[in-house]
Amino acid sequence: MLPVAHIVLSRLGQYIKEIKVKLLRFGETGAEKPGIIDTDGNIRDLSGIVNDIAGETLSDNGLKAIRSTDLNSLPLVGPDTRLGACIAGTGKFICIGLNYADHAEESGMDVPPEPVIFMKATSAICGPNDPIIIPRGSEKTDWEVELAVVIGKRAKYVSESDALKYVAGYAVTNDVSERAFQLERAGNWTKGKSCDNYGQIGPWLVTKDEISDPQNLPMWLTVNGKTMQNGSTKTMVYGVAHVVSYLSQFMSLHPGDVISTGTPPGVGMGQKPQQYLRPGDVVELGIEGLGRQRQDVIADPE
Amino acid sequence: MLPVAHIVLSRLGQYIKEIKVKLLRFGETGAEKPGIIDTDGNIRDLSGIVNDIAGETLSDNGLKAIRSTDLNSLPLVGPDTRLGACIAGTGKFICIGLNYADHAEESGMDVPPEPVIFMKATSAICGPNDPIIIPRGSEKTDWEVELAVVIGKRAKYVSESDALKYVAGYAVTNDVSERAFQLERAGNWTKGKSCDNYGQIGPWLVTKDEISDPQNLPMWLTVNGKTMQNGSTKTMVYGVAHVVSYLSQFMSLHPGDVISTGTPPGVGMGQKPQQYLRPGDVVELGIEGLGRQRQDVIADPE
Repeated sequence: MLPVAHIVLSRLGQYIKEIKVKLLRFGETGAEKPGIIDTDGNIRDLSGIVNDIAGETLSDNGLKAIRSTDLNSLPLVGPDTRLGACIAGTGKFICIGLNYADHAEESGMDVPPEPVIFMKATSAICGPNDPIIIPRGSEKTDWEVELAVVIGKRAKYVSESDALKYVAGYAVTNDVSERAFQLERAGNWTKGKSCDNYGQIGPWLVTKDEISDPQNLPMWLTVNGKTMQNGSTKTMVYGVAHVVSYLSQFMSLHPGDVISTGTPPGVGMGQKPQQYLRPGDVVELGIEGLGRQRQDVIADPE
Repeated sequence: MLPVAHIVLSRLGQYIKEIKVKLLRFGETGAEKPGIIDTDGNIRDLSGIVNDIAGETLSDNGLKAIRSTDLNSLPLVGPDTRLGACIAGTGKFICIGLNYADHAEESGMDVPPEPVIFMKATSAICGPNDPIIIPRGSEKTDWEVELAVVIGKRAKYVSESDALKYVAGYAVTNDVSERAFQLERAGNWTKGKSCDNYGQIGPWLVTKDEISDPQNLPMWLTVNGKTMQNGSTKTMVYGVAHVVSYLSQFMSLHPGDVISTGTPPGVGMGQKPQQYLRPGDVVELGIEGLGRQRQDVIADPE
């Protein structure tokens, strides 16, 4: 029989483990500060504790330091504050293409024999509720709800069984895509994936310890209130651990790097007839446990 | 007839314009400082004047401030110091594919109807004389001497006639490429272009004012002393101004972004039989007016 003190301590340990860490960045574009959601759902200013949600902050030790902070002692931030992307210092914004069998089918493409990777420009990154901007000349701006994996520690040649040790956490991404730029304008997909405000990331980074199974997360996306995507990371072809390990065979991954792991069926290109975003549309999306995003679609003001 | 004072001033103006600005970064990997080449070819430490060769330093005003500095007053740096990539803060490392007609031909591909773009990981960036690292499993590591364009000012929807205003300067790049990863491993080219140390940039950033015509620069590359590439930017299909304007229609370009503009014929994949790099090989490359690089080829020590 266990002594009472042991039981109490182990319950306390359990309780500490269960503190949800949701990290975010708030404030004007380019001047965001780090923040965290407290147990009552309020935003607290973390800038007295860490410089940003980036680099060393994303390491196990960095996250441990945040976990040991008394959140109630941190300044409260108003609920209407703009949110930026939930991570900074992203050197690479890597995407996995055709990573849900049903989405490959609706795109008229085969499931690839190994992960297809491409890059989005890091200049496309923006806050979760920042508008989707239709670039000049675009007729085919499309949506893609995706699970984003945020790297916490340099990873190179890591095995699949070790891969999750290099992950800081998860977030929602909208991998906004211009299908004509992507598929009808010569060459790689980068052109159709990299327009400004084509990469909403957030609302927050949920640390990996509180996601018990990244391969069992329901995800959804609506356009003007109508459900377009309604899937789950369960049907991902190449799972998170595989993808992290795979990428690390080709290049080193660094803290703050984002891997967007592909989208389930229901994109505009897959509709009959095809349906694309127009100024005035509203896109909402989310993943269970990772929060939700809401975007107005606007013409490019530039 | 012009008064003498006017002639003297205009000659002085000419002289000031002709001061060559060659910016570089020196020191250990990850701890590089900004530097500049003085009129005697010595490296001078610029860290008392600017933080880094990045961001605002690359703007017209930033470069003007450097131009007005008395270089002889700056600390001398030893000639054997390691050089880093000549720019920092690179958010995007964009490449133009098949941009020399002869190279497209040797690759067995058509000249594309508009620029083909793809991304290299920014984590591939390294110094001009850092080794080419053969990643695990690579059998087809190849070379590509290229003219790199460094952006100096945010550019979006810029016309071809305005495009060069957004350029800070030029440098030599080796767009090292793994042909099997690029072409035989499913999907976009990113995988074969992004390995660590696959992007040597430098030795220095030459400001655009001293390159009278970026479309008339002889360029060369040798492997173990044997000339493999011997071309000129004259045969580039889509020139620098066109490429900057073109990219800016799809995404905003930012100070420090690098555009590598494609390679002339003579890559390993184009040889009969094909020839790839092996540990112990030595690669040297250069572009007239932009300096030269030298790389040892090594197996990945990781």
